[in-house]
Amino acid sequence: MSKYVFGVDLGGTTVKLGLFDNEGAVLDKWEIVTRTENNGELILPDIAKAVLDKMAEKSIDKKDVVGVGIGVPGPVDDEGKVSVAVNLGWGAKDIAGELKSYTGLPVKAGNDANVAALGEMWQGGGKGFKNLVVVTLGTGVGGGIIINGKVVTGATGAGGEIGHLHVIDEEEETCGCGNHGCLEQYASATGVVRLAKRKLAVNKKVTLLSENDLSAKAVFDAVKANDEVAIEIAEQFGEILGKGLASVAAVTNPEAFVIGGGVSKAGTVLFDYIEKNYQKYAFPSCRKAVFKLAILGNDAGIFGAAKLVID
Amino acid sequence: MSKYVFGVDLGGTTVKLGLFDNEGAVLDKWEIVTRTENNGELILPDIAKAVLDKMAEKSIDKKDVVGVGIGVPGPVDDEGKVSVAVNLGWGAKDIAGELKSYTGLPVKAGNDANVAALGEMWQGGGKGFKNLVVVTLGTGVGGGIIINGKVVTGATGAGGEIGHLHVIDEEEETCGCGNHGCLEQYASATGVVRLAKRKLAVNKKVTLLSENDLSAKAVFDAVKANDEVAIEIAEQFGEILGKGLASVAAVTNPEAFVIGGGVSKAGTVLFDYIEKNYQKYAFPSCRKAVFKLAILGNDAGIFGAAKLVID
Repeated sequence: MSKYVFGVDLGGTTVKLGLFDNEGAVLDKWEIVTRTENNGELILPDIAKAVLDKMAEKSIDKKDVVGVGIGVPGPVDDEGKVSVAVNLGWGAKDIAGELKSYTGLPVKAGNDANVAALGEMWQGGGKGFKNLVVVTLGTGVGGGIIINGKVVTGATGAGGEIGHLHVIDEEEETCGCGNHGCLEQYASATGVVRLAKRKLAVNKKVTLLSENDLSAKAVFDAVKANDEVAIEIAEQFGEILGKGLASVAAVTNPEAFVIGGGVSKAGTVLFDYIEKNYQKYAFPSCRKAVFKLAILGNDAGIFGAAKLVID
Repeated sequence: MSKYVFGVDLGGTTVKLGLFDNEGAVLDKWEIVTRTENNGELILPDIAKAVLDKMAEKSIDKKDVVGVGIGVPGPVDDEGKVSVAVNLGWGAKDIAGELKSYTGLPVKAGNDANVAALGEMWQGGGKGFKNLVVVTLGTGVGGGIIINGKVVTGATGAGGEIGHLHVIDEEEETCGCGNHGCLEQYASATGVVRLAKRKLAVNKKVTLLSENDLSAKAVFDAVKANDEVAIEIAEQFGEILGKGLASVAAVTNPEAFVIGGGVSKAGTVLFDYIEKNYQKYAFPSCRKAVFKLAILGNDAGIFGAAKLVID
């Protein structure tokens, strides 16, 4: 029986790698740089080398490795192919096939947000739930929809792209996806800053917030200090996100929402603003859903990637 | 090997029943009245009698029956229990358990819209797709979300309740669910009439539509006759529904939407209004989804109910 599994979380700047035993214990964890030059042609060879070097270092034999799971920032289909991953310089790529050919190991690939969701379900804030939605409030807003323990990939790998729920008709700024008024334009770290800038542009009240030093952290720190303006921004954030999650619930009716990503470092104060709006807009039978914080942080991706292969 | 299966579609006025062979061919089809008096206590005994009488009439032995599938107007959990079904007078009820005790046959129960969705996937407009959304535009708006061939029931049986997506903030009329601005307030048969009434109240143009004789059929008949006012109503309907379905797509990224229910009798003219708005609001990777008409009509429920048991 194979004893080891590699979990890889491929980001636009760094690649996080984890070596796990097949029970899910972390044996080693490290990072390499993501080399995006020349349309990212070095990325998969670099990852393969990192894996093979680690096996050499630890004297691990190929037959003792279950495989390599990898999470990628882009829509990935059930066969481990991506159609485009802008942050990596990639167009269409057979990730699973290429990485398998470089390593000689079984490979499974998934969308990074979906994979992180699986990690949180397995060993994180969603442990014990089988029907959940993991919401990652980072630079963008990612989602992972889990139904009966399986991530919903979707027809073209865009399952759980809840950052692109249309929520505001009047928006004039364009979202990264080309649409206008997507959830991630307000509920991501940059989205909270957008809401804060707009508020401060018309604000006449005294506030701890300064236009020159705005961040999601600054906003929620000020909320915790009872800053009236910051609280108004948080109310707006919570109204938009709570309403968006109520829409998600009308589709899949989850047991739990697990909130992660940089913005979630603010902690459970977020729930004060999200939950009341969720309750207000959700279909009555969906209101029992609980809100949990993600707990694996940046490691959710490597856990979930490992879990991809173990399944 | 068992040869027969019963599919039951339980509505507020009539119960539709179908006798199928286990390949899905309809052998018989009939209806009985739904007796909702005394909190609907007679409904399941009546259904059991209808099934047992049919078996006697056709000289079918119990050992030759796979079971009875039943679709119910309310949220049904994975064990076949309903928490409430207002139209039937029911509170909490163990449908599968009770009907099994009355018939001595295996029973599976599901939400009526979910069950109809399964019917359309099996033998209807969604044949050949495994990831689809069936949208029923009837008195209300029901939905069935199918992922990898299985209906999403949800944590409390409210999976696919897309009629209760919140779509309009300004709505003052209350939806049947108690919320305001739900999709079904505009996209159901009564919703189209609501839109039409509001349009006619401020309309100054010549139109075929009359306030005294409004229906979804009248509106789409007028659309087909190039009536300018009816077209404006259809545009509004399409904008709301297309946008709502784009939200659904951001969650589950289906291959296809199958549109059924009374409103869908208008035919593919609906797609002229729904699809362009879907394309406008959908996340780019979700835009390949195709739109199909449901084809089983009122029989979708008995087909899907039978399929529940065959699975």
